[in-house]
Amino acid sequence: MAKELKNFTKRSDNYSQWYNELVVKADLAEQSAVRGCMVIKPYGYAIWEKMQRQLDDMFKATGHQNAYFPLLIPKSFLSREADHVEGFAKECAVVTHYRLKNDPEGNGVVVDPAARLEEELIIRPTSETIIWNTYKNWIHSYRDLPILVNQWANVFRWEMRTRMFLRTAEFLWQEGHTAHATREEAEEEARRMLEVYASFAQDYMAVPVIKGVKSANERFAGALDTYTIEAMMQDGKALQSGTSHFLGQNFAKAFDVTFMNKDNKPEYVWASSWGVSTRLMGALIMTHSDDNGLVLPPKLAPIQVVIVPIYKDNAQLQAISEKVNPLVDELRKRGISVKYDDADNRRPGFKFADYEVKGVPVRLAIGARDLENGTVEIMRRDTLEKETVAFDGIVDETARLLDDIQSNLFKKALDFRESKTCEVDSYDDFKKKIEEGGFILAHWDGTPETEEKIKEETKATIRCIPMDGDTTPGKCMVTGKPSQRRVIFARSY
Amino acid sequence: MAKELKNFTKRSDNYSQWYNELVVKADLAEQSAVRGCMVIKPYGYAIWEKMQRQLDDMFKATGHQNAYFPLLIPKSFLSREADHVEGFAKECAVVTHYRLKNDPEGNGVVVDPAARLEEELIIRPTSETIIWNTYKNWIHSYRDLPILVNQWANVFRWEMRTRMFLRTAEFLWQEGHTAHATREEAEEEARRMLEVYASFAQDYMAVPVIKGVKSANERFAGALDTYTIEAMMQDGKALQSGTSHFLGQNFAKAFDVTFMNKDNKPEYVWASSWGVSTRLMGALIMTHSDDNGLVLPPKLAPIQVVIVPIYKDNAQLQAISEKVNPLVDELRKRGISVKYDDADNRRPGFKFADYEVKGVPVRLAIGARDLENGTVEIMRRDTLEKETVAFDGIVDETARLLDDIQSNLFKKALDFRESKTCEVDSYDDFKKKIEEGGFILAHWDGTPETEEKIKEETKATIRCIPMDGDTTPGKCMVTGKPSQRRVIFARSY
Repeated sequence: MAKELKNFTKRSDNYSQWYNELVVKADLAEQSAVRGCMVIKPYGYAIWEKMQRQLDDMFKATGHQNAYFPLLIPKSFLSREADHVEGFAKECAVVTHYRLKNDPEGNGVVVDPAARLEEELIIRPTSETIIWNTYKNWIHSYRDLPILVNQWANVFRWEMRTRMFLRTAEFLWQEGHTAHATREEAEEEARRMLEVYASFAQDYMAVPVIKGVKSANERFAGALDTYTIEAMMQDGKALQSGTSHFLGQNFAKAFDVTFMNKDNKPEYVWASSWGVSTRLMGALIMTHSDDNGLVLPPKLAPIQVVIVPIYKDNAQLQAISEKVNPLVDELRKRGISVKYDDADNRRPGFKFADYEVKGVPVRLAIGARDLENGTVEIMRRDTLEKETVAFDGIVDETARLLDDIQSNLFKKALDFRESKTCEVDSYDDFKKKIEEGGFILAHWDGTPETEEKIKEETKATIRCIPMDGDTTPGKCMVTGKPSQRRVIFARSY
Repeated sequence: MAKELKNFTKRSDNYSQWYNELVVKADLAEQSAVRGCMVIKPYGYAIWEKMQRQLDDMFKATGHQNAYFPLLIPKSFLSREADHVEGFAKECAVVTHYRLKNDPEGNGVVVDPAARLEEELIIRPTSETIIWNTYKNWIHSYRDLPILVNQWANVFRWEMRTRMFLRTAEFLWQEGHTAHATREEAEEEARRMLEVYASFAQDYMAVPVIKGVKSANERFAGALDTYTIEAMMQDGKALQSGTSHFLGQNFAKAFDVTFMNKDNKPEYVWASSWGVSTRLMGALIMTHSDDNGLVLPPKLAPIQVVIVPIYKDNAQLQAISEKVNPLVDELRKRGISVKYDDADNRRPGFKFADYEVKGVPVRLAIGARDLENGTVEIMRRDTLEKETVAFDGIVDETARLLDDIQSNLFKKALDFRESKTCEVDSYDDFKKKIEEGGFILAHWDGTPETEEKIKEETKATIRCIPMDGDTTPGKCMVTGKPSQRRVIFARSY
């Protein structure tokens, strides 16, 4: 069983299969009976809860409040904003009836044709439309602005090809929807929230990200600008991990939301929206994990430290427990989440393998000999290094190790990204280089046509026009036309 | 504006209208564009978040973990359990298509007839079916049991008559779904969670509840026993505030979920489920609030203390702020959530009215004369009593007052319930008494027929067979047949 747990496909053999197996073996999620929808299992959900709690604190610290808007949206709302409907109508779950009835032929229940809705409702793929229809009643004067609201919710997009966490028909997310009196304020808000996402990704998930702006082709349907954080997975592909949109006055115009400004003149309201989803779980898993299973950054690990006793009989277990119980209390007092696994229906070898697969950052093991010697074995999951250290001082050592793992994971991921990022100046080189994976910094003439051509010929897209980094102008690698700066190309999830 | 805020329908004039107005004026929720669905506004949602957090802690303290299951359920799943489908099929939102397309006639978007689902999906009205279909893969041996899982989710029931928080088509809730090796364990779990709900209602919401068992007529569709907590609203009607179900092996049989018991024999798994919803918001509002607006128990108030400065000019405001800022810090250190409202675009009178309508438990007001005298005016929302007290010691006084309000609200609600509860022995008396509202303890012969007759003739139902209280046998007030004990009748929401 311990062997079976760790019997993974290797990343180098089949990265995609490795990921799918890991999600299941680490007990994070599984496919459900409904196509494209997953079940998030307790261990996976516990990680998501830690993410939620931290993000929620960060949203509140930047002045946002939570609210809740309806799951269902009248079909006609979608059509109000021209780009928005193009982007979302094709993948909607449509509610057409409100009742089932017994099948007259005796086969369970059937849709009651008499219970057809006058106007169909769609399950929200995102909530701009229903929210702006609501804001219309909330906003009258500049005094009512800004509105800084966030919603934690489930959304639904009928995706053809789905992968757990990365792309599922239903997913969990938060969506911020803000309303402002000026263009500048709305843009500032969109950029502020991108910074929040970047801090969260780097400081909590230990995932380095590149902040940037999307090209027109990759923009959110209905936005004037889409800001993004892009992370690199271990196969060199990019994962868009969070986006923040400056929506201009598009939704205000679509839903006729105006306010009286300070000069007492009516004006359309300015908007932003921003969201991250359970897709972050995919980013977390794929950035750090290895051929032995999940690797979790301590700040998001549901269990940061597991303690496994090694014993032959009850007397030994009792002696170990007497030593361990005060340690558990000490660790908890330091705010460290710890599990003492003294269950006697699983052997230590199985426990070791299980917690390794589940990515618990630090494992302490203590046996009869350790009791005699005043020692304990400590293992860190990121490097799998273990050593035997003095029991005294183990609390400090554990705390130190957790910090070290957190920063080591970030550094490792950053080093990896840097090693897989290069500059390319000719389209021929680009075509070769893109096969190796990774980020390519190249010049582009700024047109959708050139981007489309590159995508068709190489499957690479512009991940973003970076906010930071080298801004030297140059010439487009494809057309030779002027380019304002290098942008980031990659294949992506 | 301050007047308009407080210009409520009185409870005694029209209780139902008072409630509807209060929900809107206290900024808790509003109707949405989708029939029967509400928007929960930030202030209302903040109360719900406090409830969630507390309940979640209590669930975790009793060994439960959170998980997440799909929003959509295959239609055929509903039919698997005979009672369940009867209970829920009639009010389902049915998804039949997965795509919209541009209307060939140019009127926005229409359902794409080519995108019809092979099997319709329903939006979960409750998740027993999809969860037990999942548990089938999780449970093999007695070692896999118990499973103690909870889900925070939105659910949908197509209700004909809706009222904000009390009965809405979409609502937010938690649903616990547990799996056990023995009947006793599952029953114990159902009762344990009822105790958790009762503690939460009484200790946090300050809402006294009666714990009991539902009669067969009022049982959850698919349960062998439904436990309930019943609260009395100020109009004397009962509000079912939380239920916990012993499901026997019904869902295990419907989804073929068996486990190998300790004797290595296959056995069907035993189940419980339990839930509370945003309906609790309705219970909270209707139990404590008065003709001036919302009254909140301090433990669930997003703002426990508001401090309003009374000033003529900036110099006065500054002097007051210098005195108040350290007080704010002190209160926060004591874990008290406090808002210092020094906004200068609203006058004190408006602020007073607004916080009164919003039910903030304690209001401190401080003006120039208070500064001179070393005093502060303190008002408690529950009784509207105010007095001027010494500024020194105000932190202790505020903390004491918050405790006092919490217990006073509970006591007041309990006294009210007791004053509106009586024993009745003849059906004639019952018919008169039920018109006055309140709970009636009466003998009943235990048959669904008699209960049905009483319901038809008086609109009263059996709220529960209480777990506590007088268990003296008697004779049914309608049929004269033997009755094991008095049960509670009331009209209900």
